[in-house]
Amino acid sequence: MDTALPDILHQHVTFDDGLMLECGQALGSLTVAYRTYGRLNADCSNAILICHALTGDQYVAETHPVTGKGGWWDLVVGPGLSIDTDRFFVICSNVLGGCMGTTGPRSPRDGGEGLWGTDFPPVTVKDMVSAQKRLVEHFGISRLFAVIGGSMGGMQVLQWAASYPDMVFAAVPIASAAYHSAQNIAFNEVGRQSIFSDPDWQAGRYWQGDKVPARGLAVARMVAHITYLSEEALTRKFGRRVRGAQSLPGFADMFEVESYLRHQGSTFVRRFDANSYLTITRATDYFDLAEEYGGDLRAAFKGTRTRFCLMSFSSDWLYPTAESRSVARALNGAAANVSFVEIASDKGHDAFLLDEPDFHRALAGFLAGCAEHAGLP
Amino acid sequence: MDTALPDILHQHVTFDDGLMLECGQALGSLTVAYRTYGRLNADCSNAILICHALTGDQYVAETHPVTGKGGWWDLVVGPGLSIDTDRFFVICSNVLGGCMGTTGPRSPRDGGEGLWGTDFPPVTVKDMVSAQKRLVEHFGISRLFAVIGGSMGGMQVLQWAASYPDMVFAAVPIASAAYHSAQNIAFNEVGRQSIFSDPDWQAGRYWQGDKVPARGLAVARMVAHITYLSEEALTRKFGRRVRGAQSLPGFADMFEVESYLRHQGSTFVRRFDANSYLTITRATDYFDLAEEYGGDLRAAFKGTRTRFCLMSFSSDWLYPTAESRSVARALNGAAANVSFVEIASDKGHDAFLLDEPDFHRALAGFLAGCAEHAGLP
Repeated sequence: MDTALPDILHQHVTFDDGLMLECGQALGSLTVAYRTYGRLNADCSNAILICHALTGDQYVAETHPVTGKGGWWDLVVGPGLSIDTDRFFVICSNVLGGCMGTTGPRSPRDGGEGLWGTDFPPVTVKDMVSAQKRLVEHFGISRLFAVIGGSMGGMQVLQWAASYPDMVFAAVPIASAAYHSAQNIAFNEVGRQSIFSDPDWQAGRYWQGDKVPARGLAVARMVAHITYLSEEALTRKFGRRVRGAQSLPGFADMFEVESYLRHQGSTFVRRFDANSYLTITRATDYFDLAEEYGGDLRAAFKGTRTRFCLMSFSSDWLYPTAESRSVARALNGAAANVSFVEIASDKGHDAFLLDEPDFHRALAGFLAGCAEHAGLP
Repeated sequence: MDTALPDILHQHVTFDDGLMLECGQALGSLTVAYRTYGRLNADCSNAILICHALTGDQYVAETHPVTGKGGWWDLVVGPGLSIDTDRFFVICSNVLGGCMGTTGPRSPRDGGEGLWGTDFPPVTVKDMVSAQKRLVEHFGISRLFAVIGGSMGGMQVLQWAASYPDMVFAAVPIASAAYHSAQNIAFNEVGRQSIFSDPDWQAGRYWQGDKVPARGLAVARMVAHITYLSEEALTRKFGRRVRGAQSLPGFADMFEVESYLRHQGSTFVRRFDANSYLTITRATDYFDLAEEYGGDLRAAFKGTRTRFCLMSFSSDWLYPTAESRSVARALNGAAANVSFVEIASDKGHDAFLLDEPDFHRALAGFLAGCAEHAGLP
């Protein structure tokens, strides 16, 4: 298995004053890697921040420098698309703790030798948002026209709207939730244990040698990938189809779904760092927005003037519609301006990344309405 | 981690003429380990065969010799219980491929040195049933009053009813399905990959040394365990409760659900063999009863006189009610005598092992009715 995550110089900005984290530890220096699309207008009013999901990154709408594949939101972000780069200035940065250029476990350790590795401090979704805020201010933007993201990206959107309401004109959390459920935590924990169990993990110090915990990380990806798809989607894609003609070939590849999962696992390890996976899954598990506000999610949005559009997918069992609905209810309770769209889809959680015309139309429509309210040309 | 699976002499019978398997390979010798409860009546008409689930075994209603815990169906099988051992003679055998005494990967290899290990031939649910049939005939029983089982046990029940209809007066497949779905296969495959990834697995030859792939098997158990519980059950049991008082303790135990899963994983490896886990999960993935009958499940039950009671649990997402319903529909299509009960429960797949009075009453009621039809005293 090819396991080297290539070192690439990503477009970035470094803040030498670092970042204070929620855990109380300060990062001495903060680098944020990012990509932008479209042009920022003269009054800096047309910026959209996109927040990526667990294993996404800043390469939203262009060829990925590691995989050579298209951007993860090529269907949504671009000229004339739902997030129209002819009209909006789109920013996406790699999350804090990530492995595509933003400060994380693969970064040089503060005031020490070598890399952070597993000693990288625990970060939270709120820390991720703090880092993004630095980048946004670096661009001279005092108010984002919109903050948009799916899955863990949606958690960041909610955190943005709660922490910096005056900086967010519109917020679109997609296929997301205001906290991680016991089941969400349980699946993440299986992935972490799988990494911990790989002897090549070497208690997190694998970066000192030439091996990475590829097998553990691949299994983590496999189990996560199952949760991204609905049972219907798996059945439609694979059913019980068998590779080759053998009927009982022992433990070799047999069912197509197995071969697909193995492929997902083995390609993932070429583009992702195991310690980043540990750090970021932990951040999602910590997430519980209401807790920050005394257990009342309405309090997180008290007095907000942000316009919200919550979107969920009917067959998403990782972040089911009910969780978006409860956020919508809290927003209603806070007298916020909120709309809520459940998209009928049998594709599961991953639907937000796939060709779902109803979703794309709803997103475009909401942004068009908000642009009118914001007085954007 | 204590990893030795103790060698115990289980009650058993050995058939020296072996068993021909579906894969075409023959086992030279077949040992079936079993337990019985209650007394077989004079005309051998009161026998109930219980088929255990993936990681169950023959210790249905007594202290388990390895774990020292109670039997896995202590709530269902016993004097005066739903499966009343004052009235019925209950048999349960360890499945073919298992690790509690029946021939499997831990058995001595045919005509060679050492154990089978991963060279144990692939077995199917139908092979498991063939082995059980030998045991039943050994007792002089020509017709079982009932065959009952949950989960993989339910698959065996369906196979019994299809393959040996005249030997099954009543059949109760619980929380089961007539085939493994792509999602079922996918979760099993994650578990297998986790075992394969453990260097202590040693390509299946770990039995030659003093290590077992405990970490890989533990992760396999963890992911499986999540699928046995509903999201509601996980939330009720654990929610987001944190162990201890730390708020962001890095990667140490944090959420109670994590600690619970780790415990599930680490205790499992003390009572189960990794190669058996591979063999038996494979058998469930192969299972597709309709395929044996030209793709038409009704044909599997053509002309049957067996009385069926299908039972499912509303919150079971591993073998959802819809799968039991489609079996019921096929049975109706075959003009079989069938009743179907969906038990309202928020406990998920594991509900068939738990304190579910509605389930216990329904089972007792069905058996009482069948006993009347069978003319049992």
